[in-house]
Amino acid sequence: MKKHPLRVVQFGLGPIGCAVARLVNERSDLELIGGVDIDPEKTGKDVGTIIGLDKELGFPVVSSLKEVLDRTAADVVTHTTSSYFDLFKLQIEEILQSGLDIVSTAEELSFPWLENYVVANELDEVAKQAGKTVLGTGVNPGFLMDTLPLTITGICQKVDYISVTRVINASERRGPFQAKIGSGMSVEAFMEKMESGRMGHVGLPESMGMLFDTLGERMERYDDSVEPVVAEKLTKTDAFTVQPGEVKGLKQVARGFGANGEFAKLTFIAALDMEDDGDTIQIKGRPDLEVKLKGTNGDLSTVAMVVNAVRRVHEAPAGLVTMRDIPPVTA
Amino acid sequence: MKKHPLRVVQFGLGPIGCAVARLVNERSDLELIGGVDIDPEKTGKDVGTIIGLDKELGFPVVSSLKEVLDRTAADVVTHTTSSYFDLFKLQIEEILQSGLDIVSTAEELSFPWLENYVVANELDEVAKQAGKTVLGTGVNPGFLMDTLPLTITGICQKVDYISVTRVINASERRGPFQAKIGSGMSVEAFMEKMESGRMGHVGLPESMGMLFDTLGERMERYDDSVEPVVAEKLTKTDAFTVQPGEVKGLKQVARGFGANGEFAKLTFIAALDMEDDGDTIQIKGRPDLEVKLKGTNGDLSTVAMVVNAVRRVHEAPAGLVTMRDIPPVTA
Repeated sequence: MKKHPLRVVQFGLGPIGCAVARLVNERSDLELIGGVDIDPEKTGKDVGTIIGLDKELGFPVVSSLKEVLDRTAADVVTHTTSSYFDLFKLQIEEILQSGLDIVSTAEELSFPWLENYVVANELDEVAKQAGKTVLGTGVNPGFLMDTLPLTITGICQKVDYISVTRVINASERRGPFQAKIGSGMSVEAFMEKMESGRMGHVGLPESMGMLFDTLGERMERYDDSVEPVVAEKLTKTDAFTVQPGEVKGLKQVARGFGANGEFAKLTFIAALDMEDDGDTIQIKGRPDLEVKLKGTNGDLSTVAMVVNAVRRVHEAPAGLVTMRDIPPVTA
Repeated sequence: MKKHPLRVVQFGLGPIGCAVARLVNERSDLELIGGVDIDPEKTGKDVGTIIGLDKELGFPVVSSLKEVLDRTAADVVTHTTSSYFDLFKLQIEEILQSGLDIVSTAEELSFPWLENYVVANELDEVAKQAGKTVLGTGVNPGFLMDTLPLTITGICQKVDYISVTRVINASERRGPFQAKIGSGMSVEAFMEKMESGRMGHVGLPESMGMLFDTLGERMERYDDSVEPVVAEKLTKTDAFTVQPGEVKGLKQVARGFGANGEFAKLTFIAALDMEDDGDTIQIKGRPDLEVKLKGTNGDLSTVAMVVNAVRRVHEAPAGLVTMRDIPPVTA
């Protein structure tokens, strides 16, 4: 049964958005039909050129979804602009009200029922009114620390404790990622930046919320801390030279407590020169389980998940859904 | 939101059926309200006694579902009688037509669209007519070689090849399991029994079918072979003493071929004294991934999956569904 290709608009043409658009363009069951970005350096130029294809696609980057829809019809928007509810909420509402489904990389959308309950309900209501579906996903949040461990609990008669540890060897990642995790900063500068707010991985409360809610565990308390990983020896990458005593990355730990104490722990370590790159899930229960996953590539895998989810979301019931509400997203 | 407990009938009171019934009885969101088995040694005795509780439940094992439903209403049947379509089809039809949803351990039901297409369609039609849902699941097939690898492909931009290897150290399993895999047999006796048909793990074609169909790969050819694992030294368990040269287990390999050659390989090894007990999933694609899972316990995990799936199946649309069609089954 050959399915009609779904027409996809890419909303947000940063590095991840461009990679999503390229993969959409590669898939025979999807058709890239528009690109939206407010950057005046990009608007007016051919979408194919901007996303890095070696051919033009015949339509320009425009600054609003309306301009795409004035030209052609669409089915789904892949949305990659912001992590935070206060920044993406109006965009998502506009897309839903334009009659399109959405798959977004917005971390706070992946499981908003803990941290952003009120606005999540508002968005769910807008989606249902429009008869459209919105999903936030990616590799983390969206998979490694929530959907995957939950899927694995399917073979457990009971679960007493879950721990997920993600270790990223940032030496193998892009320079901007190395910068984001604090590479080359002094410990003082790191602590100062951290105090000011948005440093570290976004998404741990969302993953934690999905774990607790899905397993029927009531969350009594949540805490989350970030600390620098300090270089013990000279550490070099193409982008950074880090002296001993300077920061080479960060370690972030989130803990969720239920009625019987700590129920889940999520540890995110991203630093230069980490040897044991990989993801480890440990479940204590009946039976105890341990899963080790090697090879996850954050950017590449987030792009994969977004594009793989497009058809699932288009076929899902209207509303704000999360990864635990829909059938498995697969390649 | 407190949900009304679902009323569950256990159909089939062998070792797995009894374990399912015990777990149903333990769950606050489920209520065990009946037990069906045709064994005259069991009928008439209290279900609590037969499944190994230290209390009576106040209702007897009966030989037909009708006898349960004459006494009380029910929502879902957990079904653990036979692996094979020709043996379970009439049972499943009767249960659906009685107005109940079903979760079954029947291996051939887990993904019947390859090996049993015609009868699967008939069953799907019966389920839809009745407005009820039927799912075949378990740890394998149902999870390790199909649902779990498919779930992991969600973070892949493309998949070129999948290999799943399951190694079971049968020394840690029950005597009947050790017998089933050929422990203590001569190689000649093993080969003879194998030729006669039903020796080895049931479910590889079903897992293979789910992989191909879900990933949109057309299966050009399938083959499946079983060979004995021969003891190199004296091997003892509580149930068996295996001399060097005798069989201590089996190795079964299934291969599925697509347009570009071999696309998936499923290897099942169950033998005494195996050191590397565990499950390994390898995916070649973008990116390459490797997953190692330790701690899976076949019986315990199948029981978990069946019971964990009860509510999902009750809430799923009518028809014959498979694990890739419903949201993740979780503890």
